[in-house]
Parts: sequence; C-alpha cells; structure tokens
Amino acid sequence: MKLVIANKTYSSWSLRPWLLLTELGIPFEEVLIPFGQTFDDPEWKRAISAFTPTGKVPALLDGEIQVWESLAIMDRIADLRPDLPVWPREPAARAMARSIAAEMHAGFSALRGACPMNIARQFHPRDRGAKVAADVARITAIWREARARFGESGPFLFGAFGAADAMFAPVGARFTGYGIALDPVSATYVEAVQATRGYQSWRMAALAEPWIIDEDEVDEPVLEEFRPHLSRSKA
Amino acid sequence: MKLVIANKTYSSWSLRPWLLLTELGIPFEEVLIPFGQTFDDPEWKRAISAFTPTGKVPALLDGEIQVWESLAIMDRIADLRPDLPVWPREPAARAMARSIAAEMHAGFSALRGACPMNIARQFHPRDRGAKVAADVARITAIWREARARFGESGPFLFGAFGAADAMFAPVGARFTGYGIALDPVSATYVEAVQATRGYQSWRMAALAEPWIIDEDEVDEPVLEEFRPHLSRSKA
Repeated sequence: MKLVIANKTYSSWSLRPWLLLTELGIPFEEVLIPFGQTFDDPEWKRAISAFTPTGKVPALLDGEIQVWESLAIMDRIADLRPDLPVWPREPAARAMARSIAAEMHAGFSALRGACPMNIARQFHPRDRGAKVAADVARITAIWREARARFGESGPFLFGAFGAADAMFAPVGARFTGYGIALDPVSATYVEAVQATRGYQSWRMAALAEPWIIDEDEVDEPVLEEFRPHLSRSKA
Repeated sequence: MKLVIANKTYSSWSLRPWLLLTELGIPFEEVLIPFGQTFDDPEWKRAISAFTPTGKVPALLDGEIQVWESLAIMDRIADLRPDLPVWPREPAARAMARSIAAEMHAGFSALRGACPMNIARQFHPRDRGAKVAADVARITAIWREARARFGESGPFLFGAFGAADAMFAPVGARFTGYGIALDPVSATYVEAVQATRGYQSWRMAALAEPWIIDEDEVDEPVLEEFRPHLSRSKA
C-alpha cells in the first residue's frame, strides 16, 4: 500500500491519512512528491497525476485500487481493517464522528485561508478576524462535546485515536502554530494529538524539509533562526 | 426518522439525502424549514439549531441520534441498511464512489458559486469563465469514467442508484438549469437522474414553492412567466 503525499510542512490534507495509518500501526510506503515553488506548479501537477486523477494529494494506491480525498482514504482503511476503531462502533458516537469529519472536510474555510498549516514554524498570536474566531469557536465546541460525551476511554475525541482525530489534526497544528488561545479541554486534546509518535515523527520530518513556499508564509515567524539551514526568500 | 431540509428550489445539500432515501424506498418524515429572505437569516438559524449544532441543513434525526452533513447522513443510511447498495460493494467501485463523493463534498466551488442550484428556473446558456469550465470538465470526466468502468448494470454511476448519484444530483440540476453543454454520456446520465420519481417529485415541490431568495437569482430566467404566481423582487 502506497500513500502519496506532499510537503510535511504545508500539506494538511496529506497529514490526515498518514497520521491515521501510522497511529493504527498499518504498514505503508510513503511517496512524498514535494510541491514546486507554488501549489499549482504544472510540473508537480504532472508528477502527481501519475497517482491520482484529481492532481491533488493525498492518494492511496492499494494494488489496482486508487483512492483519493483524505476522507475517502480513511473509509478505505476502515473497510480494510474492520478490526480497528477507525470510526467508533457505538451508533451515536459513530454518527457524530462521521458528521464532524464531513464538516471538517468541507468547512472552516476562513481559518484555513487565514492560517495555512505551517507545521515547521511558530507565529505570534494576533487577531485574525471574526470569521476565523467563529471557526475556532465551532471546532472547539465540537471537540468539547465529543470529549464530554464519548471520550471517556482515552485522550482522543472518541477515546482511541481514529479518523475524526486525523481529520482535525491539521487544525490543531494551526491552533498551536498561530498561537490561537484554546479552552482547557481543547488545549489538552491538541496536546494529546501532538504527543503521538506519529505526529512527532511527521513534525520532525517537516522541520528537516528544505522547501519554502511563500504563498503559505503569511506571517513573520517568532524565531527567524528556527530553521537555520534555510535562507528564506521573501515574497 | 426525520430529515430536516430547506427550500427545494435552492437547497442543494438538502436534495442529496432526500433523494437517496426516496430512491431507496426508505420511509422518513420530511421537516422543511424555509430559509428567510437571506441564507444567513438569524430566525432561520435559530429554528434550525433545534435540530443540528451546525445551523445548516440537512440533518437526520433518528431517535436520539443526530447526523448532519449530507455525506455523513448517507453513511448513516449505509450503516442502517447494509442490505441496500448505498455504496457499491465491489472494492474498486466502492473506493471510486467514496473518492468522488468526498471530492464533490469539498470541491467545485467555482461552479457552485457561479451557478447556485435553482431547480425551479431555466437560464440562458452563456460563458461562465475558465474556472467553472474546469469544474464542469472534471465532473463530467468523473461521470464518464464511472459509467465506463462500473455502470454496466444500470443507468447510474455504479449501475444502481446510490450515494454517489445523490451527491452529484445538485450539479446535474445546475448543468441543465444553466444550459451547460454536456458530452453524450454525461447528458444521458443527468437525464437518468432527473427521470427518477424522487427527482421529479422534488422538482414539482420546488416549482410550487412561494419563496424567492435574491442572493441565488444570478441571471434572468428564460421565461419570466415560468412561476406566474410570483412577483419577483429585484436585488
């Protein structure tokens, strides 16, 4: 099984299935195709189109079977491994997990636009507008509700690490990276996700990446020397 | 089981699970809460928030279990009725169905922005820009591929009517409503969807609706007298 992804620093959609597979202990081969100088670089699009008809990452190649879109890849993993809690088994928990994963898949565009995932850098907190604040409020309300209703058996949304946690891992990265203040339940939850071996290992790899894409460098980082081997180009 | 929806003329997200439930012959109670004068009318948001934490439609209420987001509702239906082909059973078809449903769920924003679903009216064809054309090209490529690879046993994407068809029904409505030219395979497919009893009955109900929302009236309709009982307000 091959998982095709892009830069670990920036590719929030890639992080999701990578983290799910890693945390569930499912072996896979990682194929990382770094973005070009921009996200719509034609050479990158050409390279990626060998693996997926959308010209986007992530994609899962499982023998003859091609799966794209982070959410569909997770459903494929759930089909392949019914023994693992990709989605919760209890119907009310399962319904909520699927609802919030779909909500995350299609929503929160204000947050995603204003705070692109940039897992290798730390930014100063600042006001990012009412729409971003509304997205943060909704996401953290989801987390508090899932933790309160279904999170008893472990530190994740539905206890054990699953697809819903993987779907929200990139927004957790945005919250910590952009210094967005969180309520205690949400902060503890994000800490738990970021303490996983999978997340740590993804982040270490992101820190070692040599590539910078100006499009997604929206702020000055807290420490310019954070990645000292890079001379950062300015847009 | 209650399905909460909004105006049949405009609510593309509502159409999806409504059509799936109807075509699969699963009984449900329809709860239609019409939008206010705008889509973010606070009174409508209040009314809808009794049924769903997102303040959006559709929502499925199944006893104590609350499901929101069209895609998650379909997954709930698949869980409830494993005897029905909500998703194809054959792994490659199933993987493609889930991939394209997720792609539809999160994508094609140019088409959706330029051509809001308006199932009660017919508009003149005109050029709607390169981004819309790219969305149309990708959607119809998906349809041609599914029909060619998996559509042998019936007129729909994977033969029998299922979740993938329901996900794409609103873009089919946009294509015919805005007079967007389609290749023969795609045109035949859209005809098959629009010939279902479910779609016909949804459209008849849309035509009988008294509500007009100017936000989603982007063009002059072909026939002003198409809904003669209405005096149309102009933005």
